[in-house]
Order: sequence, then C-alpha cells, then structure tokens
Amino acid sequence: MTAGLPETDQALLRAIVSERGPAQRRALAKAITLLESTRADHRERADALLDALLPHAGGAFRMGLSGVPGAGKSTFIEALGIFLADRGHRIAVLAVDPSSTLSGGSILGDKTRMQRLGAHERAFIRPSPSGGTLGGVADKTREAIIVCEAAGHDIVVVETVGVGQSETAVHGMTDCFCLLQLPNAGDDLQAIKKGVMELADLVAINKADLDEAAAMRARAQITSALRFFGTHAHAAQADDAADSWRPEVLQISALQAQGLDAFWDAVTRFRERQAAHGRLAARRRAQDRAWMWERIEAGLRERFKTHPDVGRALPRLSEDVEAGRVAPSVAARRLLDLMN
Amino acid sequence: MTAGLPETDQALLRAIVSERGPAQRRALAKAITLLESTRADHRERADALLDALLPHAGGAFRMGLSGVPGAGKSTFIEALGIFLADRGHRIAVLAVDPSSTLSGGSILGDKTRMQRLGAHERAFIRPSPSGGTLGGVADKTREAIIVCEAAGHDIVVVETVGVGQSETAVHGMTDCFCLLQLPNAGDDLQAIKKGVMELADLVAINKADLDEAAAMRARAQITSALRFFGTHAHAAQADDAADSWRPEVLQISALQAQGLDAFWDAVTRFRERQAAHGRLAARRRAQDRAWMWERIEAGLRERFKTHPDVGRALPRLSEDVEAGRVAPSVAARRLLDLMN
Repeated sequence: MTAGLPETDQALLRAIVSERGPAQRRALAKAITLLESTRADHRERADALLDALLPHAGGAFRMGLSGVPGAGKSTFIEALGIFLADRGHRIAVLAVDPSSTLSGGSILGDKTRMQRLGAHERAFIRPSPSGGTLGGVADKTREAIIVCEAAGHDIVVVETVGVGQSETAVHGMTDCFCLLQLPNAGDDLQAIKKGVMELADLVAINKADLDEAAAMRARAQITSALRFFGTHAHAAQADDAADSWRPEVLQISALQAQGLDAFWDAVTRFRERQAAHGRLAARRRAQDRAWMWERIEAGLRERFKTHPDVGRALPRLSEDVEAGRVAPSVAARRLLDLMN
Repeated sequence: MTAGLPETDQALLRAIVSERGPAQRRALAKAITLLESTRADHRERADALLDALLPHAGGAFRMGLSGVPGAGKSTFIEALGIFLADRGHRIAVLAVDPSSTLSGGSILGDKTRMQRLGAHERAFIRPSPSGGTLGGVADKTREAIIVCEAAGHDIVVVETVGVGQSETAVHGMTDCFCLLQLPNAGDDLQAIKKGVMELADLVAINKADLDEAAAMRARAQITSALRFFGTHAHAAQADDAADSWRPEVLQISALQAQGLDAFWDAVTRFRERQAAHGRLAARRRAQDRAWMWERIEAGLRERFKTHPDVGRALPRLSEDVEAGRVAPSVAARRLLDLMN
C-alpha cells in the first residue's frame, strides 16, 4: 500500500496512523493541507496518500451539524466535544463553509473559537477549506474525514452554516445529520423552506434554558412540522415503516452543558437502529457513489468550460439562448460538437 | 431563416406557421416526430427546423399539471380544454411521462382518452415521447412546446403523472404549475413529502362534488401546508413580499365541469401578477438557461460513459469505491484522466 509513496509521505502516513499527540496532530494538519492544494504534483501525492490511508479509515461515526448563525453551533460543538473527549472518545471537527469561497474567511477559522476543545488532547479541529465551489469545498472536507479516521478519531463532526446548499452537502457525507434550532418560530420555518428539516435525523433546540415555554412551543412546532414529512426519507423504501427512524426533537443548553447526555443517547439510539438495519452501511455506499459521480460531473463541466472553442462560443450562444434566438437544446448540441 | 432548410422542411415550416386545420395538424405531428427521432440526420434537420420556428414561438401561456394517478387529470384537461377552446383559445396538450421510458407506453397514448377535446378543431393532443431518460423525454416535450407555439396555440398544457422527478421537469418548462389533488388526507402529504407542493402555483381539489365536507377539510389542510413553505419560492428574492404570489387552493369538479371558470380566473390572476412584475419573462430566461446546461451536462455524461477507456475501467473502479478500496474523489480523477 505504501510502496508507491515518496519517502516524506510514507513518514506522514506512519505519523497519522501510528503516532498520537502533537506529532500526529502536525501530520494530520500537513496531510490535509496537501490534499487542499491545487498544484498538480501535490494532487498526485495527495491521491496516493488517500489510497494508503483508506484501509485505516471508515471507523468513525460521522455527525453533521447545521443551524442558522447565532444558533450556538460552536458552543454546542465545544460542549459536546469536551463531554465526549472526557469519556475517552477522540473527536475531530471539520467544517463546510461555502461563504469562505467568497470572503476567504472561514467558520472555525477564528482561533478564539472552541479554545477549550482545541486544547483537549483527544480533539482535532480544522477550519473549512476555502476557495472554489461548494462542491470543491465539500470534496476537500470529505477527504479530510478519511484522514481523521485513519488517525483513529472515532467521532467526526462536520459543521456547516445554515445557509444555501451546504446542508445537503454535509448530509451527504455524514451518518447522522443534526439540526440546531433556536426556541423561536422564525427559524424552523426557515429550515422548512430550504428543505433542510427533511434532512434532519435529530433536532436540538438550543438555549432552551433561557425561555422554557418558548422551547416547549418550538419543540411541539418542529415535531408537527416533521410529521408533515412523514416517515423518514432516508429510511430505505423497502424498510418496514415500523423499523424506520422518526427524527427526535430535544431541548438542550450548550452554554450550560445541559441535555448533552440525552442528546448523545439519542444519537446512539439512532446509530444502533441504523446499524441493525444495515442502513448505516447502505447510506455510506450511496454517499460514496454520489460523491464519485459529483466529482466526475464537476470535472466534465470544468473541461467543457475551459475548452478553448467552447470558451469562445459560449458567451455568444448563451446570449442567443436568453434572447430566444436559439433553442437551448440546439445551443447545447452545438457547444458539445465543438469539443470533438 | 428558412434558407438553410431542405425543401420538404421548408414546406413543413410553412404548414406549421401558416396553415390551420387538418393540414397544420399533420405538419405539427410530423415535425414533432422528426425532433423525437434519434437518427443523426433527422437530428440535424430538427435543429434547423427549431431554429426557423423559434421566432414564431413563445406566445403561449404554458401550464403544467400534475396529480397522482386517479386524481382526474385527463378529465380535467378535457373539460378545461373544451372550456377554453369554446372561448376561442387554441390549446395544445403535451405530456412528460417517465414511465413511458420503461414500459414503452405513454400517458395520453390511449386514443380513447380526451376524445372530445381531441376532436375539437382548436385543440392538438400529443402523447409523451417515450424511451430514454427523464431528461431526454422532457427535452423532447420542451421542443414540442416550441413547435406548438409556432403553430399559434396560445395555451400549452403539459401533463405529468404524480410520480418521481417529472414534476420538477414540468415545473421547469411551464409558466404556471398546477397540482390536482383528491379530497382526502393522503395525497397532499404525498405531495409534501416529495417536495411537489412547494412547486405549486395553484392547487385544485378535484371531485369536490362527491364529498364537500372532505373537500373543505382538504382545502384547509393544503392551505395550511402551503403556509409552511411561506411566501412563494419563485417570487424573486428581491421582490417585495407584498407583491409575491400566494398559491391559491380551489375546489372543482372536472367531471361536472364545475369551478373551471374560477380556476381559469385564478390562472389569469397569477399570469397577470407574474407579467406585471417581470417574473414571467425572468422565469422563462432562467428555465432556458437551466435547460441548456441540463442538456450540456447530459451530453457530457453520455460522452464520458461511452468513452471506450472509461467504459472499460468504470465497473472495476465503481466496485473499488463501493468496497472502500479507492476514495470516490480519486476514482473520479482517474476516470477523467482516461479521457485525455
């Protein structure tokens, strides 16, 4: 497996798989930086390293977390991370932040966030990769999951901000997708409108200690909204309805570290139920298939757009389509013909 | 415009644009058959014909209609079609039926359906194209819309069965998307689960005469479900909320031809509101852009899959991905490299 690797990357591989502590942390960070690089020679090395890491990966429980800004995601991840790390778990925290592609900034980039968790010897925190499309950012995070798992992390949390399509991307790379909500009526409607609520395996109402009555109302409201979507979408159609998971709605306070045990109990119940029905493995297989095809399609689109003849013809033909001078299907065929 | 056309197709073009009655009907059917053909020389002729027809197209109001089997779509379209044709409108009825790709059958293929409308001099009915992917079927229907519009039809109805992704395809080619529902609780939940309810500009509860109490309940239920989705998704974000359309829910009886005038009034209100805010044109521009890119991506996928080296390597690499031996992103890059 390691035969094809240059010597430095063999050392990197060994450090990731076998070391612990600061040496492993450095190796982890270095490997992730390598696979985030866009240089062709780096990419080749990164692919070889991924191949060598893959047999050591797959062992973690992958948890996605989303919520609107202000929902308390960092506070929650820090509290949950410390709760789990103190119980012997090794936790890695990654992020998919599409806004980092615009601003160059990044959630989790702020060094002052999650300071306590970051200092924990059994935790590893990595900010969102920046630059490129959401697909590209998500791609790098998926590869980082492999690296973290090969390093022996048994829980990987992937965070995303509650805007745009990033929730779908994170749902597509995790075993369990959790939604963090605030105890007021506006937020859950937001989540429903964007089609995010349907993705949730678990919903946690944060800051429940501030206004218990509001939190109770939110819980009832979200439970009723979830009922609208019926039995859970990713329970495979062939499943008995009796076996399928109904998303749970919990009240927590991340700041007070309240409800973390109940939350983790629910995650564990979900995980066991999924595993017992073979859904955990099936979900990952489907995710891997979808990931491969998403990258193939992104690569094909990239080739298309950077083809010199297409590049020359595209602006004019797009204009013709928008002005109703050329039928879209005809324009598509003409552009494709230019690639021959 | 017609200079590039072979003589037979020039005659076809003239018959579509200038004739009326049986001669035009035959020309219409012939042109649509030409553009449904998969032969390369036919395709070239069809593209030239589309180019020549396009300046005559775009004048119809395009209405999408979906509903589960049994909702009464044919009966409704026949009743509405006759209602409109009797008032001087020229109506074309097309269909997108993904099941026709499997069974070779086709909704609207049954000659006994819509007999009265089919016999109307101001109506033209065409079954769903069959064979190929949903994308391919939808593509042909979109092109058929252009042909029907060039023939002077001022209303085009595109029907689809209420299963799978076909609603999204029909929503993506029409100005107004209507959902036909039955007065019982199960159906609207189905529509909500599949994300179809969010697409609806109008919902008509059919067979309302059979059980008025149930129809009233269904109306309340659907109205409340629609409220969950908030202000309408395809009201452009920049719009004032006050200007945006809230989907209307109506009760009708297609069999008794009851409520058709109220239904058409609602369609007209929607149309005027959309036009006044420039949304009609914006929706079509966005649809055309999306259509072009959908066809480009389908073409790129097709080339990829039929590339001999890719075809040889794909089964093995897919297996490796599913078995966790190769990372999906690495497999994608290897396959793309084979195309060079």
